[in-house]
Amino acid sequence: MPLLNPGRRLLAEFLGTALLVCTVVGSGIAAQQLSPGNSGLQLLENSTATVLGLGVLILIFAPASGAHFNPAVSLADWLTGRRTGTGLTTVDLAGYLIAQVLGAVAGSVLANAMFDQPAIQISTCHRVTTGHLIGEVVATAGLIAVVFALTRTARAALSAPAIAAYIGAAYWFTSSTSFANPAVTIGRVFSDTFAGIAPSSAPAFVLAELAGAAIGLTLIGIVYPAPLKGALHE
Amino acid sequence: MPLLNPGRRLLAEFLGTALLVCTVVGSGIAAQQLSPGNSGLQLLENSTATVLGLGVLILIFAPASGAHFNPAVSLADWLTGRRTGTGLTTVDLAGYLIAQVLGAVAGSVLANAMFDQPAIQISTCHRVTTGHLIGEVVATAGLIAVVFALTRTARAALSAPAIAAYIGAAYWFTSSTSFANPAVTIGRVFSDTFAGIAPSSAPAFVLAELAGAAIGLTLIGIVYPAPLKGALHE
Amino acid sequence: MPLLNPGRRLLAEFLGTALLVCTVVGSGIAAQQLSPGNSGLQLLENSTATVLGLGVLILIFAPASGAHFNPAVSLADWLTGRRTGTGLTTVDLAGYLIAQVLGAVAGSVLANAMFDQPAIQISTCHRVTTGHLIGEVVATAGLIAVVFALTRTARAALSAPAIAAYIGAAYWFTSSTSFANPAVTIGRVFSDTFAGIAPSSAPAFVLAELAGAAIGLTLIGIVYPAPLKGALHE
Amino acid sequence: MPLLNPGRRLLAEFLGTALLVCTVVGSGIAAQQLSPGNSGLQLLENSTATVLGLGVLILIFAPASGAHFNPAVSLADWLTGRRTGTGLTTVDLAGYLIAQVLGAVAGSVLANAMFDQPAIQISTCHRVTTGHLIGEVVATAGLIAVVFALTRTARAALSAPAIAAYIGAAYWFTSSTSFANPAVTIGRVFSDTFAGIAPSSAPAFVLAELAGAAIGLTLIGIVYPAPLKGALHE
Repeated sequence: MPLLNPGRRLLAEFLGTALLVCTVVGSGIAAQQLSPGNSGLQLLENSTATVLGLGVLILIFAPASGAHFNPAVSLADWLTGRRTGTGLTTVDLAGYLIAQVLGAVAGSVLANAMFDQPAIQISTCHRVTTGHLIGEVVATAGLIAVVFALTRTARAALSAPAIAAYIGAAYWFTSSTSFANPAVTIGRVFSDTFAGIAPSSAPAFVLAELAGAAIGLTLIGIVYPAPLKGALHE
Repeated sequence: MPLLNPGRRLLAEFLGTALLVCTVVGSGIAAQQLSPGNSGLQLLENSTATVLGLGVLILIFAPASGAHFNPAVSLADWLTGRRTGTGLTTVDLAGYLIAQVLGAVAGSVLANAMFDQPAIQISTCHRVTTGHLIGEVVATAGLIAVVFALTRTARAALSAPAIAAYIGAAYWFTSSTSFANPAVTIGRVFSDTFAGIAPSSAPAFVLAELAGAAIGLTLIGIVYPAPLKGALHE
Repeated sequence: MPLLNPGRRLLAEFLGTALLVCTVVGSGIAAQQLSPGNSGLQLLENSTATVLGLGVLILIFAPASGAHFNPAVSLADWLTGRRTGTGLTTVDLAGYLIAQVLGAVAGSVLANAMFDQPAIQISTCHRVTTGHLIGEVVATAGLIAVVFALTRTARAALSAPAIAAYIGAAYWFTSSTSFANPAVTIGRVFSDTFAGIAPSSAPAFVLAELAGAAIGLTLIGIVYPAPLKGALHE
Repeated sequence: MPLLNPGRRLLAEFLGTALLVCTVVGSGIAAQQLSPGNSGLQLLENSTATVLGLGVLILIFAPASGAHFNPAVSLADWLTGRRTGTGLTTVDLAGYLIAQVLGAVAGSVLANAMFDQPAIQISTCHRVTTGHLIGEVVATAGLIAVVFALTRTARAALSAPAIAAYIGAAYWFTSSTSFANPAVTIGRVFSDTFAGIAPSSAPAFVLAELAGAAIGLTLIGIVYPAPLKGALHE
């Protein structure tokens, strides 16, 4: 991947994560305002906007930084890259994680400002249940599986639509509406709306996401132990 | 197709079918909880999630196992392969069918667990009517037609979006909401929700699906009696 | 285009048009039953199913017959082909029109049967207003413009998603919900549901569609007077 | 880009912008009529139709004129082209802007006519708030970022789905429902419906859009200072 100089890569991760959270939180606020009392329709509006927005953000930033926008993806990239000498270095990883978390918080603030709400707010939406934590494990395992299955089979060019579609499905098939991203989880703490998550719920979500990432990486390692070149063109 | 060793292929069929049923049942539970009393909106949520999830699952697992996730597809592959020497062997077929059925049941259990419901449950949703059985025949005929039309015309790379889109349409244009898959039918017995099917309804659905598969395979055999190479690039 | 022998091509047009009408009418019945009293949601369900189904039907049958499923498209193909020596012959055209109309009627009957309704029925839904006829002119002009813009610029491989997306938009932006197809208009006479059209409204709709096709063909002839080869790859 | 002779390019910009506004306004009227009192569902219908329609319009007209349909895009193209000698000339730019504005007005008039409404009408929908203007800045910055990120990385062939998806997300994640286009803003003055904007609100929206375009162009200039060839195929 033609990675640009570090400043540009970190700017890409910052902007991409900010706009991803801005998409999730902003469309959540819009859905809440336009479809009051109809939580199913709200989630359909919220998930549809996220599918469309996430796919485009990956397209915009993938050539610059790989378009991770997600510490779980960056960690998995760093971990698998240690074996092969490709992937993020440890210094890269630290920069990515910081850029992603800062971006995620900035995204919530920007969404709040657009909707004429207090720029800084803290969610009061408690989300931890056993089912929701299983949901986050499954959601993140699936996300990591999509990312690395495509990489291992030489189809990374399909990442944008595939990851966007995956998240759109996971909004619905998981009980937790699929945060699946520690940075986004932290960013959504700063929105006291439909899309927020209370600070007390965030740590358990992050841990469940990291556990899910490990499971996803393990499963793909079994199914695709080595890269399959040209798999797209059979 | 670069088929991997048998264990990996069966794992791919197991995981893919499990996650497909988990997507159908999980998004069905979410839809039922979030849009109570609005069965049209529920089905729109359920079908949208399935379109997005199924397409991704095919992308993930196609290079490993062909991403059948469906005994009707595996049977048709085995049947057509006998003539040409490609396709599944009889031993492959047996393994695929077992992996698919076990995966489908596991998918229901996982969905139930994510939504804090009893892990094992049996559907009480009776679905057999003359119209629904015609619906399953049409649904499965169409599914098999999509799969084999793409294969015969050297466009298998389009399978993921095409099959996902087909199922999304078939949720709505068939009266049965298009199960179109004997393994998924069995898996959905184990969910007493919106997406379930009572055990007494399952055998008739499976028979209708197999009849539909035969019809679909016959029609495609008439329209495309031999492979059309390069048809994509006219 | 590697056109198959005549029988196979006509079978492809018959099946494709039948399944297109079955998709439109079947999803219309499902929408009406599941979302009673909510005509906006009904149309969203109906249009979403049609987008997904139409795209797949074009993929399935394009290599066989060109996947017209529409007398307006076949007429335009025949007309433009006279100049270049490609396209349908007059005998082809007659066969295509007959296969399309018979298919469209069969599609309504199949949808009725799937939903346990009388197989043969006649619509009582009167649709002729000045606005609706302008709507059909615009709808069909746009459809023909999509089809021939892609052909003239060597991007016919994009027809399936492009035409499906166009029809999905036209359901909403035209006042008539975009029939845009004389065969489908005739087929929808045989469904006394949400998606039907009364026999007395059909002739005006067909005339408006043919006028629209002429306008669309003229506009594309001005913008793209000659084929642009390789336009996709700039 | 194989730009055609000036008349054809301007016709393409006129028709494309007209049909874009016709899609936005027409589907807005349909949504308002079919889903009265449900503004969330209305916006979902309106945004879905726009995503599908905009993508197709870009496909149709991109080889002719570049499919700008938007003065902000044309201005950015002219500005960046001055450095490289490619892009629009100042004379081109003037023609594009005139064609776009005339097209946008024509599109509203056509939508009004299709829905049996007075052909000429002036919106009374006041839209200026601080949040909405921030929304337009963000919306247009993002749009310009998508367009130029794809150009700079040799992936302009993905513009149609990417720009369409972006606008679909921006309908929801911005507070202003993302006009993001000065010509479309002017065109929507001529529709006193759901999709309209009062004349007194239009100038502030246009200024916010131009500011957003400048920000988007600046950010992409930092992330991708030089073209990345072959970035699609890593």
